[in-house]
Amino acid sequence: MDTAKLPKMLYGGDYNPEQWDPSIWPEDMRLIELAGMNIATVNVFSWAMLQPSEDTYNFETLDRIMDMLHQNGIHACLATSTGAHPAWMARRHSDVLRTDFEGRKRKFGARHNSCPNSETYRTYSTRLASKLAERYGNHPALLLWHVSNEYGGDCYCDRCEAAFRVWLQKKYGTLDKLNEQWNTRFWGHTFYDWDEIVLPNALSEQWSYNSTCFQGISLDYTRFNSDSMLDCYKLEYDAIKMITPHIPVTTNLMGTYKPLDYFKWAKHMDIVAWDNYPSMNTPSSYVAMTHDLMRGLKGGAPFLLMEQTPSQQNWQAYNTLKRPGIMRLWSYQAVAHGSDSVMFFQLRRSVGACEKYHGALIEHVGHEHTRVFRECAQLGAELSSFGTKLLGSRLPSRVAIMFDWENRWAIEYSSGPTVDLKYVDEIHKYYRAFYDGGYQVDIVSFEDRIEEYDIVVAPVMYMVKPGMASRIEAFVSGGGTFVTTFFSGIVNENDIVTLGGYPGELRQLLGIWAEEIDALYPDSSNKIVMNESYGSLQGTFSCSLLCDLIHSEGADVLAVYGEDFYAGMPVLTRNRFGGGQAWYVASSPDEAFLRGFAAELCSQHGIEPLPGKAPGVELTRRAIDNRTYLFVLNHNAGPVTIDLGSESGTDLITGSSISGQTEIAGYGVLIIE
Amino acid sequence: MDTAKLPKMLYGGDYNPEQWDPSIWPEDMRLIELAGMNIATVNVFSWAMLQPSEDTYNFETLDRIMDMLHQNGIHACLATSTGAHPAWMARRHSDVLRTDFEGRKRKFGARHNSCPNSETYRTYSTRLASKLAERYGNHPALLLWHVSNEYGGDCYCDRCEAAFRVWLQKKYGTLDKLNEQWNTRFWGHTFYDWDEIVLPNALSEQWSYNSTCFQGISLDYTRFNSDSMLDCYKLEYDAIKMITPHIPVTTNLMGTYKPLDYFKWAKHMDIVAWDNYPSMNTPSSYVAMTHDLMRGLKGGAPFLLMEQTPSQQNWQAYNTLKRPGIMRLWSYQAVAHGSDSVMFFQLRRSVGACEKYHGALIEHVGHEHTRVFRECAQLGAELSSFGTKLLGSRLPSRVAIMFDWENRWAIEYSSGPTVDLKYVDEIHKYYRAFYDGGYQVDIVSFEDRIEEYDIVVAPVMYMVKPGMASRIEAFVSGGGTFVTTFFSGIVNENDIVTLGGYPGELRQLLGIWAEEIDALYPDSSNKIVMNESYGSLQGTFSCSLLCDLIHSEGADVLAVYGEDFYAGMPVLTRNRFGGGQAWYVASSPDEAFLRGFAAELCSQHGIEPLPGKAPGVELTRRAIDNRTYLFVLNHNAGPVTIDLGSESGTDLITGSSISGQTEIAGYGVLIIE
Amino acid sequence: MDTAKLPKMLYGGDYNPEQWDPSIWPEDMRLIELAGMNIATVNVFSWAMLQPSEDTYNFETLDRIMDMLHQNGIHACLATSTGAHPAWMARRHSDVLRTDFEGRKRKFGARHNSCPNSETYRTYSTRLASKLAERYGNHPALLLWHVSNEYGGDCYCDRCEAAFRVWLQKKYGTLDKLNEQWNTRFWGHTFYDWDEIVLPNALSEQWSYNSTCFQGISLDYTRFNSDSMLDCYKLEYDAIKMITPHIPVTTNLMGTYKPLDYFKWAKHMDIVAWDNYPSMNTPSSYVAMTHDLMRGLKGGAPFLLMEQTPSQQNWQAYNTLKRPGIMRLWSYQAVAHGSDSVMFFQLRRSVGACEKYHGALIEHVGHEHTRVFRECAQLGAELSSFGTKLLGSRLPSRVAIMFDWENRWAIEYSSGPTVDLKYVDEIHKYYRAFYDGGYQVDIVSFEDRIEEYDIVVAPVMYMVKPGMASRIEAFVSGGGTFVTTFFSGIVNENDIVTLGGYPGELRQLLGIWAEEIDALYPDSSNKIVMNESYGSLQGTFSCSLLCDLIHSEGADVLAVYGEDFYAGMPVLTRNRFGGGQAWYVASSPDEAFLRGFAAELCSQHGIEPLPGKAPGVELTRRAIDNRTYLFVLNHNAGPVTIDLGSESGTDLITGSSISGQTEIAGYGVLIIE
Repeated sequence: MDTAKLPKMLYGGDYNPEQWDPSIWPEDMRLIELAGMNIATVNVFSWAMLQPSEDTYNFETLDRIMDMLHQNGIHACLATSTGAHPAWMARRHSDVLRTDFEGRKRKFGARHNSCPNSETYRTYSTRLASKLAERYGNHPALLLWHVSNEYGGDCYCDRCEAAFRVWLQKKYGTLDKLNEQWNTRFWGHTFYDWDEIVLPNALSEQWSYNSTCFQGISLDYTRFNSDSMLDCYKLEYDAIKMITPHIPVTTNLMGTYKPLDYFKWAKHMDIVAWDNYPSMNTPSSYVAMTHDLMRGLKGGAPFLLMEQTPSQQNWQAYNTLKRPGIMRLWSYQAVAHGSDSVMFFQLRRSVGACEKYHGALIEHVGHEHTRVFRECAQLGAELSSFGTKLLGSRLPSRVAIMFDWENRWAIEYSSGPTVDLKYVDEIHKYYRAFYDGGYQVDIVSFEDRIEEYDIVVAPVMYMVKPGMASRIEAFVSGGGTFVTTFFSGIVNENDIVTLGGYPGELRQLLGIWAEEIDALYPDSSNKIVMNESYGSLQGTFSCSLLCDLIHSEGADVLAVYGEDFYAGMPVLTRNRFGGGQAWYVASSPDEAFLRGFAAELCSQHGIEPLPGKAPGVELTRRAIDNRTYLFVLNHNAGPVTIDLGSESGTDLITGSSISGQTEIAGYGVLIIE
Repeated sequence: MDTAKLPKMLYGGDYNPEQWDPSIWPEDMRLIELAGMNIATVNVFSWAMLQPSEDTYNFETLDRIMDMLHQNGIHACLATSTGAHPAWMARRHSDVLRTDFEGRKRKFGARHNSCPNSETYRTYSTRLASKLAERYGNHPALLLWHVSNEYGGDCYCDRCEAAFRVWLQKKYGTLDKLNEQWNTRFWGHTFYDWDEIVLPNALSEQWSYNSTCFQGISLDYTRFNSDSMLDCYKLEYDAIKMITPHIPVTTNLMGTYKPLDYFKWAKHMDIVAWDNYPSMNTPSSYVAMTHDLMRGLKGGAPFLLMEQTPSQQNWQAYNTLKRPGIMRLWSYQAVAHGSDSVMFFQLRRSVGACEKYHGALIEHVGHEHTRVFRECAQLGAELSSFGTKLLGSRLPSRVAIMFDWENRWAIEYSSGPTVDLKYVDEIHKYYRAFYDGGYQVDIVSFEDRIEEYDIVVAPVMYMVKPGMASRIEAFVSGGGTFVTTFFSGIVNENDIVTLGGYPGELRQLLGIWAEEIDALYPDSSNKIVMNESYGSLQGTFSCSLLCDLIHSEGADVLAVYGEDFYAGMPVLTRNRFGGGQAWYVASSPDEAFLRGFAAELCSQHGIEPLPGKAPGVELTRRAIDNRTYLFVLNHNAGPVTIDLGSESGTDLITGSSISGQTEIAGYGVLIIE
Repeated sequence: MDTAKLPKMLYGGDYNPEQWDPSIWPEDMRLIELAGMNIATVNVFSWAMLQPSEDTYNFETLDRIMDMLHQNGIHACLATSTGAHPAWMARRHSDVLRTDFEGRKRKFGARHNSCPNSETYRTYSTRLASKLAERYGNHPALLLWHVSNEYGGDCYCDRCEAAFRVWLQKKYGTLDKLNEQWNTRFWGHTFYDWDEIVLPNALSEQWSYNSTCFQGISLDYTRFNSDSMLDCYKLEYDAIKMITPHIPVTTNLMGTYKPLDYFKWAKHMDIVAWDNYPSMNTPSSYVAMTHDLMRGLKGGAPFLLMEQTPSQQNWQAYNTLKRPGIMRLWSYQAVAHGSDSVMFFQLRRSVGACEKYHGALIEHVGHEHTRVFRECAQLGAELSSFGTKLLGSRLPSRVAIMFDWENRWAIEYSSGPTVDLKYVDEIHKYYRAFYDGGYQVDIVSFEDRIEEYDIVVAPVMYMVKPGMASRIEAFVSGGGTFVTTFFSGIVNENDIVTLGGYPGELRQLLGIWAEEIDALYPDSSNKIVMNESYGSLQGTFSCSLLCDLIHSEGADVLAVYGEDFYAGMPVLTRNRFGGGQAWYVASSPDEAFLRGFAAELCSQHGIEPLPGKAPGVELTRRAIDNRTYLFVLNHNAGPVTIDLGSESGTDLITGSSISGQTEIAGYGVLIIE
């Protein structure tokens, strides 16, 4: 989807008029326009309305909604409604119902409720998508297709079990290969017939949702489950595209959601869209990282912020209000990281069921005289004033962080060395180091090209997939800087250990051997003692979680452990390899170390931080053609004075000229062109 | 049941001689009489004995027991034994077995084990009740019927599912009405056939036992489940009443037990009876509140304390002994709040199974030379000495607190704004404020008449049922003072939001609009800053949990928030409405505020506290005819000197005259006539 | 098994060459020999390999393995592979699959996965054992049979239910007897037909895995489950013994594992073997206690340390490395307590599945140049140098601690008085008191002879089995000292209370009556105030958990409670009975009290501590013929100087002479002959 061709930034959100009496619709239109909005996501949960029985379809209400949107100049992001099946379908075709991790057949209820391998579900969901495409493909309101809703969860029914066996046959070809890659000789698990294979859940291989006896089996099941849902998405995608090839298609992702491999999904999406629901105490760097991850799914192309709450959520433990200015600040944060939309869940707050205490543009009181409405309308006016300026712009970056869902699954299924190792947390530690330094970062997959970057950081690259080691070696040979950490280079793509000494396939590149891996109790730590200063990085730091006991095999030892029986062994090494450098960080360092380390790596490559850095102030730069936009986001409640150095320009929001030292209000935003 | 006609206060407890060899019975009789007891609850768990097989009944042992009681001058509180079905019935008729919240069919075991919609259970339990009524209706020992035992739990079997659909048809008439009141258009849940409706549990709508996707469905199921058990009770009740219309019938309730709507139940009970099992660190105000709630179930009539432990329990984590004097103190606390009995579980401690470490009058040692026996016998002598004096007396009160089970269910099923809002805790906060001030309080339902009261407090009146708003308006118009709090006036009886601005139907009465509701983290708080003093209530207080952001629409603003972006907005308002006042407390205040607030409300109405208040000293007054009894209960371990002011009289226990300043011993009790 | 006939101490571990390509085997042999090893446990998880289908057996690979071991002079501890059934068997014969505590039929997966009452499992496991015995009975490598692996878990299937009824008929004969001993009249549970009895689990009698409505039922099920697994073991044992009567048979136990009554099991084992997996913060006294328990299973005969990790585990939350020297120290600790082997899991680290991060002699790097290998090889050289010296030696002791699995189950199923009472913890408190004092202790069962001891301590002898009271009385009459504690003498073997006053059958012996039992909250305590000094034991100590309120009925009161309403009541009593003394400790004392108490009891009997005691230094003495070996184990990281007094001799490890004051290195070991 080419957002650059839009007349202005998309602003709107989920809108469910079919849940209301039509007499209220004109008031909705008045308020939505008053808020400066131009897009509505409709038809998200209307399957039961559109198809009231096996053979009946009824599009009357949706016709009226689409027409109304068009008459009011509002684009439709048209959903296919397949995120929750109708009650009658569950009753007549029980194959649509999932079986849960405990092996229990579910009944009708909730959402995310369809078995992805149900024939009924696949048939009827695809048919509905086709019918919608046929009916609304030429509707003037239609801007974008929204398939299903927040795909997620998993299923352990017999149908999925059978499909899993087919998936495995396709992957492994022979049982011999499967037995080898799952190491089934362990605990006498050898399979002699494909039908002996059962799904890994609480009744078979798993002690709990996140722990398993056979990593290989659980890892493949997780891939299979992600693929099964992706197949459902693709079936609808293909059905729609056959009819409306020129209308872009997306679905709403959920950031760092674990069960689905979004890099794989994004290949089949015309534009990435996602739902951003941080809690009030989520670090701003974490949200920034997630935006960058979403942007990274399609190689840096602009994405859509599909959902966020205008005020408060309902499903957190403590649903605090977004303080005045926060909704605006966080909306701009999305834009700053590459979003070409600001959209909400939802436009009108529902009157019953579990989301009725979730914020909305139009609250239960029903009028515009609320703080929330005022803030939305102000933002609408601002966004509208930008015209096409930001649309289609990208974020140039010379640093990349690698992120991989399969690696994450494998790490977190691992039995040992520690339960505290969470992949996303380690990614975030490194991300935050660059973020705090004012350095723009891309997040890339294990498959993405990295040649364009100067620095590539791959925290806990536990799994080394085929061909990866040589690709990274080529990158470093060519002058790049590569950084990885403890517990890396351990296994292949099926969680089978690479024998011959850790970090396996990365050993030559890194010039080290990791002999042992020590796990620290949560209240324990060790020390990083710098042997020599690395630029401005010197002194002693703290580290924790895991400590690899490594030996240099050619790498320079820049720091050693300060404590315990491995005091004096290397903890930070740099190996010169071809024209570049390969770093190994053998433990999980504290913030101070990582901030200094990131800055020094950048400095070495002549990468300058964005101007205006101050505590709690976030910076990004979007660029298109010969224009650039420096975003300055003040996450502090109070005003901050920043120094833009030689940077100067015009603030897109206020139109005022900005340069040198500038004060930015609490929760304030500057977009300097 | 008219307890005023009894010759003396009931004193005794659960007695299970059928669990013992009859050779021990004479010793039981000797000890029970030695303890001054006059009532025994028998036949609670004898179904398997009474009906050893499908077609056989055997009442020989029960005949002997009843005769023995009579011969020893002991009343029988005769249970129907239907609290646990026999093993043979579970084997032959599996419909008596429940299906649990996880959807698992249970097997024989434990108690509370019968499906309330089982035809087998209903048939056989009613038949047994009839047979007992026929056989013992004229037995001279019979004083009172005790149906089943501690009704509780729930069932999710197919039979309950079918019955639920019938219940719903009766309630809603049409599916259209049901779809509207459940707001099923949300998440595409529209039902086109009654048979599409499934029970809400872990396999359908609920994330956990207390959280649900569809509040309306879960709320109706909870009502249905309470009604189903009540139906079982009523079937036995009716069967008994047909034969022995003059013998009162009850069942033992469990205080603030959540799943059953006891106000609805009490309509079908001839007298309220309940089991009081606080832990050693339950606040005395909480127990007092529960007694008042139980008294309130039947409009203030005396009730029965059916069970308490004489010494220790067995099912708590740490079953500490009741310290010397505590059993007596807590027994009098029940009487002080309206009980006309003091009864124990149990008279003889069982020899095996899970309650064998629960205290009893007769311990495993088997004789009377124990601390526990001595304390019981002393209390027996005291109670006996009162004769008929206290029987039938009531507790006059000008203050009422409203409590409603359906409101409670709806609040605690709510998804948002906070998981920490527990209805009973909020009730208790207000109750304690009056309790600490020495003010007598009634607890009334949402349906009860309130015209007789001066002050009515309804903490968190989230659900406003049909007609309630106008009834409260009439009460206030007539000069009454009404107090409610944050998160009130939000929904109708089906958890559908009243649109147009919170507090919905109460908005005009309260003269405010609540624009937003902020949820505070557990370690957060805001401040209540008094604008002006309200009587002696002035200064600054703390508040927490939820903060409604309200605007006055005519109400006086007595206090404002002291912090956060809504500092200065009202937190305490008073609206003059007709001849009375309607107060809104927009957050959950600290104890100091509530204590001052309660005192000031009373003062305004000329309500004086009971005389003798001191820290840790509880006060109530019972009255009958022209006599009154002031109860003074010292919950402190040490003696306290109280000042009775102008009050004087004779202590019912010691017979001594009391007036002015008096010392009351640690854990001591005065009953001043 | 007579370990005294071995040429040297067994040193080796689990070895799974069938999980690897045979090309690696020669390297395995080289490394195993290099480490000085002489035994390999093989064939533990090979069932699927040995029996690839219903009617096919294939021993080719195992033939090669056995031959290879023999050719390299390595003994085979040959497992029967029945610890996990093949996948094909689960598919074809679903009766091998267990039903779990929640009532869910399991699918294929994990291990410990066979129903112990499955006919398929019993038939095929026994057949496999026979075939192995026939094939390898005369193989020169064969030293020892290892049946199955770490028996454990439980099953609740219909087949087990039917078998349970048969087991009960055998135990009780009549339903009347069963009803009486289960006290089924409680809660109306009377059974009229054996088929009415169902297994106690989450669907019937149990609230959770450890809490039950009917202690008697759950206790019998636990016995039945232990017996069912033992039957499986015995079937294999008998099949093997029929063919190879002269080869010893064992299985690997798991220390204090709760579900299996190891005293009963050990009667059917030719030698006890166990797997020792402490975490890094398990107290050394706890491990020592467990070794002594394992030694006690067969009356003090030497046992085998079958498994331990050479470096780290994988299944703990935080799998820290064994620090340098720890593996050696803990290996000697096993030997010091009676092990005639030091064996590891495992010799080569697996390449996939859940144990790949568990330490091994041969790590993933594959060579000998690792810290772990070097430490193993050093230990191998040391052990080899001892020759036959230690083999067959025993640990003479005059003190015994009683331990009983049935007593433990009953205590921990008890509903009340406290959830914090854990039997093994109380055993450990007393054990540690002797351990810290340098006194050697035996752990004996409730059935073992105790006449040979001077002092017998039975913490929490809750259950008194038939005949036990008189056996203990005879022991004390004969001059012995007996110590027991709070919550003792309460029930018979079926958890039915002994009426007439606690401690029931022990009351006369102890000369006290326990009137009540108070449970303390975790943050509460009481005081032990010594009335008079008992030897050097004087002053005031702390106690907690439970406090029996006891009266002396002839016993001397040595200490009284210092606080609460029972201050002044006895807490420590001594009753002179015949020629001996019976002590009662009415609460759970602090360490200081117990250390002093243990020392004084020993002193009274002229029992001297072993020489060389110092903080963190563990002492034991093994003896055979006229030789003794004093083990001195320094659990401190740093060196300690000990005083051996008049003891002198030669250190078995270094060959140096030792006497008087000696320094022992951090984690160091002396074995003084």
